[in-house]
This record gives sequence, C-alpha cells and structure tokens, in this order.
Amino acid sequence: MENRAKEVKEQGMTVKKSDDLSEWYNEVVVKAELADHSGAKGFMFIRPYGYAVWENIQGILDSKLKKLGHKNAYSPALIPERLLSKEAEHVKGFAPEAYVVTHAGSEKLAERYVLRPTSETIIYESYAKWIRSHRQLPLLWNFWNSVFRAEIKMTKLFLRTSEFLWQEGHTVHATEEDCDREVMLILDAYRDLIENYLAIPVVSGKKSEREKFAGALYTTTLEALMPDGRALQMGTSHNLGQNFSKAFSITFLDADKQRKHAWQASWGVSTRMIGALIMVHGDDKGLILPPRIAPVQIVIIPILFEKSKDAVLKKAKEMKKALESSFRVELDDREDYTPGWKFNEHELRGVPLRIEIGPKDIEKNQAVAVRRDTSEKIVLRENLMEKEIKKLLEEIQKGLYAKAKNFLEQNVKNASDLEEVSKHIGKRMVARVNWCGDGKCEEAVKEKAAATLRVIRFDETAGNSRCFCCGKKALHVAYFSKAY
Amino acid sequence: MENRAKEVKEQGMTVKKSDDLSEWYNEVVVKAELADHSGAKGFMFIRPYGYAVWENIQGILDSKLKKLGHKNAYSPALIPERLLSKEAEHVKGFAPEAYVVTHAGSEKLAERYVLRPTSETIIYESYAKWIRSHRQLPLLWNFWNSVFRAEIKMTKLFLRTSEFLWQEGHTVHATEEDCDREVMLILDAYRDLIENYLAIPVVSGKKSEREKFAGALYTTTLEALMPDGRALQMGTSHNLGQNFSKAFSITFLDADKQRKHAWQASWGVSTRMIGALIMVHGDDKGLILPPRIAPVQIVIIPILFEKSKDAVLKKAKEMKKALESSFRVELDDREDYTPGWKFNEHELRGVPLRIEIGPKDIEKNQAVAVRRDTSEKIVLRENLMEKEIKKLLEEIQKGLYAKAKNFLEQNVKNASDLEEVSKHIGKRMVARVNWCGDGKCEEAVKEKAAATLRVIRFDETAGNSRCFCCGKKALHVAYFSKAY
Repeated sequence: MENRAKEVKEQGMTVKKSDDLSEWYNEVVVKAELADHSGAKGFMFIRPYGYAVWENIQGILDSKLKKLGHKNAYSPALIPERLLSKEAEHVKGFAPEAYVVTHAGSEKLAERYVLRPTSETIIYESYAKWIRSHRQLPLLWNFWNSVFRAEIKMTKLFLRTSEFLWQEGHTVHATEEDCDREVMLILDAYRDLIENYLAIPVVSGKKSEREKFAGALYTTTLEALMPDGRALQMGTSHNLGQNFSKAFSITFLDADKQRKHAWQASWGVSTRMIGALIMVHGDDKGLILPPRIAPVQIVIIPILFEKSKDAVLKKAKEMKKALESSFRVELDDREDYTPGWKFNEHELRGVPLRIEIGPKDIEKNQAVAVRRDTSEKIVLRENLMEKEIKKLLEEIQKGLYAKAKNFLEQNVKNASDLEEVSKHIGKRMVARVNWCGDGKCEEAVKEKAAATLRVIRFDETAGNSRCFCCGKKALHVAYFSKAY
Repeated sequence: MENRAKEVKEQGMTVKKSDDLSEWYNEVVVKAELADHSGAKGFMFIRPYGYAVWENIQGILDSKLKKLGHKNAYSPALIPERLLSKEAEHVKGFAPEAYVVTHAGSEKLAERYVLRPTSETIIYESYAKWIRSHRQLPLLWNFWNSVFRAEIKMTKLFLRTSEFLWQEGHTVHATEEDCDREVMLILDAYRDLIENYLAIPVVSGKKSEREKFAGALYTTTLEALMPDGRALQMGTSHNLGQNFSKAFSITFLDADKQRKHAWQASWGVSTRMIGALIMVHGDDKGLILPPRIAPVQIVIIPILFEKSKDAVLKKAKEMKKALESSFRVELDDREDYTPGWKFNEHELRGVPLRIEIGPKDIEKNQAVAVRRDTSEKIVLRENLMEKEIKKLLEEIQKGLYAKAKNFLEQNVKNASDLEEVSKHIGKRMVARVNWCGDGKCEEAVKEKAAATLRVIRFDETAGNSRCFCCGKKALHVAYFSKAY
C-alpha cells in the first residue's frame, strides 16, 4: 500500500482534451501504458498494452491479405546506398532522413548502407533475379517490419518517431489493369480495417502529383480527420507503374513470347493508425478503444466487502470463465486497490465495458455494466448476459464510428476562393474546393494557409465549375487541410 | 511452355547430402525457395515458403508464451552506444560485431548508435524507469524482432547471416528462485517446440563459464546434432542474476518495505532453427518438413488425361475442400506441368504427403498417398480418407523424430582422455567426458581438437570419476563437439 496517494496522482489524467490536444495525447499514451520514449532519442518503446492493439490490427489485416492471396516474407533492414539511388525520385524523397551505416565494430564496411526507410529498392533487386515468366504473376508479397526515418526534432509517440512498425506490400503484375485492380483492392481492405474495426471514417481518393509517393505513377490514400482539424494519412496504396521495373530490370516472358517490363504496386499501413485511434475516440478520462480492436473488451470488477468477499470473488471468477470464450475479458481482483481506483484505471486504459458485481447483484441474479463511451449504466440479467454484452459492444463500436463520422462531416466546408480556403483552415476545418489540377494553385494554398492538398475523392467530379484559385476549368474536387 | 528443360535442370537437386552437406544445404535452401542471398552482403531475404515455416514456429511458441502469462512488446532497433557499454562483460561480447550508426542523411547524430545485437541494455534502461514495486513482478515481456551481428566473412543462409529473426524474452523477478524457475520453464517450452514440432531431439543442460551469454550468471541451452557431427545451439535461456539490475538500477520496493535489486532472465530462439530443420531431416531429393510445422502438409496432384480431365479435376477440388478444414492442403492443378515434374517439385519443397488422384482411382473410390520421408505408397479409401491421413501425418512426424533421435544416440561416444576426445571429434562425433569444471581442461580440447564444450547435461552426474584431462575429481558430465 506504499505511496498510494502519489500513485493515483501520477497515474490519473491531468490535461483536458479540449484544453490542449497535444499534451492530452502525450499524457494518454504514457499513462495508459501504450508506449513511451526510449533511451534512443526519437525512438519509441511500445509497451504490451499498445503492442496488443497492434497485434489485433495485424491479425485482422494479415488474415484479410492472405484471403486475397498474399504471402508474407522478410527482406533485410539494411539497404546498400547504391540500390536506394537507382530510382531518381525515390532517393530524393528518402535519402535526407535515412540513417547511414558505415562500420561494423571498428571495421569500415566495403560499401555504405542505409536503414530501410521503405524497401522498394532492395526487394526489387531480388524480384529481378526471381521473376522470369508470366506464370509467376501476379506476385503478391507482403512484409511486416519496421522502418527508419530520422525525426530528430519533434518526436510524437506513434505519430512521429524515428522508427515505426508497419507492413509494406510489394506486388508485381503483368498488366497495368491488373496493377490498378490491386491498388484499389488493397485500399478497400485498408478502408474496411480502419472504418469497421478502428471505427475511424476516412475520405478515400488520390494524391496530387506533389503529394504522391516518391517514385510512384500515382498514390491512393485514406485520410482521417483529427479533433484539431488536421488530417492524418491512415494508409496509402501506390501504382508504381514501370518506374521501378525499368530501374531494376524486372522483366518477364509473357504468354505472347514477348519480354515485358512488369507493373508494380506498393502499399502500407503503420502504427500511426494507433495515434489516430487515440486522438479520435479518447476523452478527458483517457483512452476509448473500439471493442473490435480492444485488447481487453470487458473488465470485471468485484465489489468486495469483508463479509461477502468470498462469494463475490467466486461469482466474478465464474462470470469471467463464462464470458471468455466469446470476449476478451479481464478480472481485476487485486485486493489492495479500491473499486474506485480501478474504475479510473480501466477508464484511462479505454476498456469499452466495465462490469461491476457486488453482494446485492448476486442476490438479484444480475450485474451492472458501465459503458466507457457514454458512462451509461445497464443492468445485465445473469441468464441473458452474453447476449446483452454482445449487443452493448456492437452499440459502442457503432456509436464511436457515428460520432467520428459526424465530426468529419461537420468539419468539411466548401470554399470558393483562396480567401475562403484560408478562413476555413484558420477555423481548423477542411476546405473542399473545385480545382483545375495545376500545382501552382496547390502551392498558393500552402503559402497562404500552410495547408496541403490531402485527397482528391474518387467519387466526386467538378462538373462545369471553375478552379477556386485561378478560375480556369476545374477538373477535380480537392480537400485541403493541415496535416500530421 | 518456354524453357521447360532448362527450368527442370535449374530447379532440381544436383548435390547429394552425403557427398557435400554444405553445398547440398545451400542448394536446398535456394531451390526450395526458403531463402536467398540479398543485395546487402551477408543479409538474407526470407522468401514466403521459408517465412511460412517461421510463422508456424511463431504461432506455436507465441501461444505457449502467452499461456504462461507473457506479453509482447517492441523496443527500438537502435541502441545508444553508451547504454551497450553499461554492463562490462556484455559490451565485450557484442561490440566487435555491432553495426554502427553515426549519421542521418548528411547530418551527424548527437551520439553514436549500434543496431541491436540483442536488446538487454535498451530494454533495461526503460525497465528501471517503470519498475517500482513488487506488485509489478514478475514482469514477463517478450519481443519478436530481428537482430544484427556482422558476419561479413562467411554467410550461410539461416545459420550465419548479419541479420536474423528471433524472439528475445526479458523477464524481471523479485527473487532468485523465481528467476531460476522462469529460466527452466522457458527452456522446457523451447524443448517442447523443438522436439515435438520440429522433430529434432536436443540435449538440454548448462553452458560452461566460457560459453555462457556475455553478462549472465548462467546460461541453459538446447543442443541439436547435425549430420556432419557438429552441434547447433537451438535455444538459450539465461539467468542474468543481478548483473544488469545493478548496472541499470532496476530496483523495487518489496513487501517487507526494503528496496531491492531485481533478478532477471533473458531467453531466445531464432530462424537458425530453420537451418537445423533443413539439415536434420532433408535427403537427396531436397527438404523434408515435419507435418506439424509444414506450411503445406498435403499436396493433391490430379493425374490428367484428355478424356477424363474434367472428372478428375472436379474430384481433386472436392477432395481439397473436404480436407482443408483439418489440414493445410494445396491442390496443384497447373496444366502446363506434368505430374512427374510436380512430384519432383513438391519433394524438393519437402511436403510431407502427396496424394495422387487419377481416373482409375475415381472408379475404385480411392486415392494414392505417397510419404515424403519413406516414399511408401498407401491406398486411401475415400470414406476413411481424413482418418487415414491424420494417422499417416502422425507417423511421419514420429518417424522423423525417431530417426534423428537414433542418429544423436549413435553419435555420442564416451571418451576417457584428451586423445580419445580428439579421435571422436575427428570421426565427426560428440565426445562425452567426465570433467573437473576447470576452464583449462576445456581450453585443452579447443587446442587439440578444435571443439568446444557444448553442454553439461542437467540429469547426469560424474559420480566418483576423474577429469578426462587433468585427472582431478570430476564434477560434471560434459559434451564436446564442433559447432555451427
């Protein structure tokens, strides 16, 4: 029981989300024990609770990808600098923030390496060696690993660290059509993961030429909106065209006996998604996790009094046993913490549903559930408990999505000129404009409002309208905002 | 159908296992498409088939560890050099082969980093920050990642590469006893994985002072024997004592209100195990995978003739569907390859069981199974197929283990003096000796026979015997051999 008062103060939330989103975020990540800063400046230590969220994300996505015919593999973390340089745009995009390895022990290496910022180059050199025939295509490989991009100035756990975990898919196709199809198939798999599991609505579309992946033909993206009006890129899927297959000589003998350059796609989602998860759903009490992704969906807290302790503990254990085949459930039967202390802790950790069971509940064959998202109390009848919990968890899942969706819709505003774009951005909103497609008009927004073009939606057309900036014929509907 | 003859020649095995184990090994790894050399010298590219073996190993071990209460986490790949240096023995052991990072892009970093050769130091610095009370102990965390140890001179896929995949467990305990218990619990979990899934018998015991992990109090190990008489260390579990907790100030307030230094264990198994798997079970036709670990347990090959093609393909598909709820099964219905070509390919890939189905089999309501390990043909009756296959796969699993166990037993020979040790080692055997425990006698073997002390078995005592080398009272039974 040492230092209990101090412990409560240290562990509880002290910053309100609406007062200072950035400080609130830092506090949630560290106090909910999702992650922490490590002894290596700019690098994060992902703690078990945060890693369990990542394992759930991995499990869902990995099984999706395998069902679509993808296989996992592993490529080296070190890339010879000469390989990184083979695709001109690519090296320009990644070299400045790449960690350089020149020595092993005190010996100088024969060539210079970089820690992979992304693995196109080293993977494609091997692909060139292995791929010979159209019968090997499409080749659908995925890689779970970590990547390195030096973020020395401004670290933000999950969102901006020098190393993060992700998957990178690298697929090879015989035709442009098949490659296009893959790009969209993956984007949709990502959308399903993000909207239906993480409960975060996204706007899906294309990036502009200025914002596309270094070396790609085009980039598709899923953009989410954070509470401060800044967009967060949740996942991207690129058609690389034949840019890399030409740089790395990836060719195949087609059915028509012609040797051809392959078409390639690459795509990825990362632990940044966890950053979005925290920001979108959390509140002043801490984290709120959507049930489908929560490492612990239900925490059972026995209300212990001296006289009835044994009976209540017994009941709580039975309840855990009955529920754990259907749910991820934890029993918090620590005796040196009060129920109130436990309530705070599990609220901070974002457990979607708390179940309290005390002596009076046992008498009435019931338990009391408390929703993390609404604080609503619901009496659960013992004989219907599993069914009622299932329903509650689904309601929480849907409720979190609906709330976030509503926020997104409320915070996208049409703008008809540069002035209006700037005004919306200033009010922490996303500006929706008709755009001619010229990078100069895009640049004008950056100069005026420090915002970038986040996405051009697939399902909208500019009709007969004029560009918000130059007044020429508009070709696209574009979304501008600040971004993480 | 291009280049078919060339393809067969390139894909088939050309080296016999008994002629040149090392060349045979290289050929199996590359031609079975388990792994290959990459564009980064000394680094391997693990291809999907090899990675699927690793995923199976991960799945088995991860669920074992979680059942024992362990949780996964992630710590950075870069370790500040100042941290690596904190434990004196540890830095001596690892610094010489550590990759050094000094720059990001063209900017010099504020301090020097090494790529983790193992993560004790950076993890324990964080543990020191987080651990305060006995109520947090034991802390049972595990980390799946890759580690880096420069192997620039002699690369051997899976066995000796500059980066390999592994898990490293890092647990913290209140008492020495609890730490001892963890060390043995893990060693036994590893033994179960290796013997009962990989079908590789091991000798389990302790390492000598000279061979223990750099910084440990003691190291326990599982040693397997390869066909060339060299031992391969399959997994290790270390009691680190309080060496690191003192270097990193990991202390906790115990129930008795005293602040104490924690006890720590660390333990790991790696993709090296896949190297052992290949060497122990394979034959002149290529790989042989134990069913419990094989990515594909059964391959169905339809025997296609023009007239009956549709009926046979239909039957083969039905069979796949019927079997895939119980087994990992693949249907090879490619029409531009002959059955014979497919037989060779799947034998090379080590698929434990092949099922052939042709028009005559359909008439007789049967199929023909061929065991990869013995080449035995077994007629499977359609109505009993699932049961018979289950039995066959179990027999293969047990048969592979029994064969390897027999080889191990046949190749351990008692030796009563240094001369005899040297003679056994020269004949590619393991020498079993009574030993006084003095490092000088250990060193004598190294000088005379270029062999090292691999393991001191837990379950053997030297009784009243004398040391094989110096003639003093023997304290241990020790096993000497060459090693990978």
